[in-house]
Amino acid sequence: MSTIGNSMNIFWQESPIGKLERQKLLNQKGCVVWITGLSGSGKSTLACSLSNELYARGKLSYILDGDNLRHGLNKDLGFKAEDRTENIRRVGEVAKLFADAGLICIASLISPYRKDRDACRAMLPDSNFIEASLFLNGSHLDYVFMNMPLALCEERDPKGLYKLARAGKIKGFTGIDDPYDLPLNCEIEINQKDGVCPMPSAMAGEVVTYLEDKGYLQD
Amino acid sequence: MSTIGNSMNIFWQESPIGKLERQKLLNQKGCVVWITGLSGSGKSTLACSLSNELYARGKLSYILDGDNLRHGLNKDLGFKAEDRTENIRRVGEVAKLFADAGLICIASLISPYRKDRDACRAMLPDSNFIEASLFLNGSHLDYVFMNMPLALCEERDPKGLYKLARAGKIKGFTGIDDPYDLPLNCEIEINQKDGVCPMPSAMAGEVVTYLEDKGYLQD
Repeated sequence: MSTIGNSMNIFWQESPIGKLERQKLLNQKGCVVWITGLSGSGKSTLACSLSNELYARGKLSYILDGDNLRHGLNKDLGFKAEDRTENIRRVGEVAKLFADAGLICIASLISPYRKDRDACRAMLPDSNFIEASLFLNGSHLDYVFMNMPLALCEERDPKGLYKLARAGKIKGFTGIDDPYDLPLNCEIEINQKDGVCPMPSAMAGEVVTYLEDKGYLQD
Repeated sequence: MSTIGNSMNIFWQESPIGKLERQKLLNQKGCVVWITGLSGSGKSTLACSLSNELYARGKLSYILDGDNLRHGLNKDLGFKAEDRTENIRRVGEVAKLFADAGLICIASLISPYRKDRDACRAMLPDSNFIEASLFLNGSHLDYVFMNMPLALCEERDPKGLYKLARAGKIKGFTGIDDPYDLPLNCEIEINQKDGVCPMPSAMAGEVVTYLEDKGYLQD
């Protein structure tokens, strides 16, 4: 019997159909691919391209986009540090559910603070740290770091946000007046080539190869 | 550009692989089966049995169990009315994501207040009410009401909670000292037969037949 939430009346309900059965149905392993990086670094581009590539191979993925979730699950949260932390905690919890459901969950969030990313890794009490990757309820969480220079992101500025931030019209903008903590232990790092982002299909291919090598694309 | 969350920098990111493509991969339609009823009314039993039956037909479902989520996503919430409301709001939002991912999402929560259940139905601004059922981002949310008399639930008392509530050791327990608003517009009502709950497979069969009739078990 648990005492979480100041109550004794919470039980853990086991389901007879578990993660293994769902993975068998899908012929893949549930996992989380967490894409982190500055605004404009190509996170959403990679997420969409990866989703396409996986679909072409008959694999079921689902994108948790940080911006989209702020319209729904996280619409009560703003952008101050504690809200960003709660935002990432909730996305981590939902990503865990999707991985448990057997999907390849692609989370795409700036997720600027190292401590919040680390909290996602450490979310479960029974988690096993295996070097830089983690079993989350039997699921891995793998980080992809979009390592693009600020200047390049700002030049791209696909949403016009850097302009607004430079003009002081957006406060607390990551990279301008709010920090981005560089990842220390990401599994995949996507780098610029000759001062530009790689092609979407090339970035996605790199992640697909990683997933394939790790055995995620079969049950 | 949205102003949700007191910020202008939230965009809606469209994915090229959408719900229709995922449904095609799964050969089913994403939807939400929301099971509501008193503690001990058989919600979890139905959820598990339904998950089994769907799996036997090659369909992918995922159970969102109210108690389980209180260990993760909703661990910051207690049992006062506003926390119950937020609990149900978040489960509704996550259920919506699962339906969008193409899964048959089975949400199993007491969800005692009608206003909270109604809020789940009305969650999306573009929702179309079609009699008692609702398009949620193109997904239906269907309610299953476990209509079991309090006396029967209390006699079953599978978790020993009614005993604790009657002894005053749990406060605000639904059915004892906190209300359960009877559903006015549920799609399926599971009733007692001769003073006992129906067999799990019989209850699940009723829901499977409903899902089949509505066309959810093919894309």
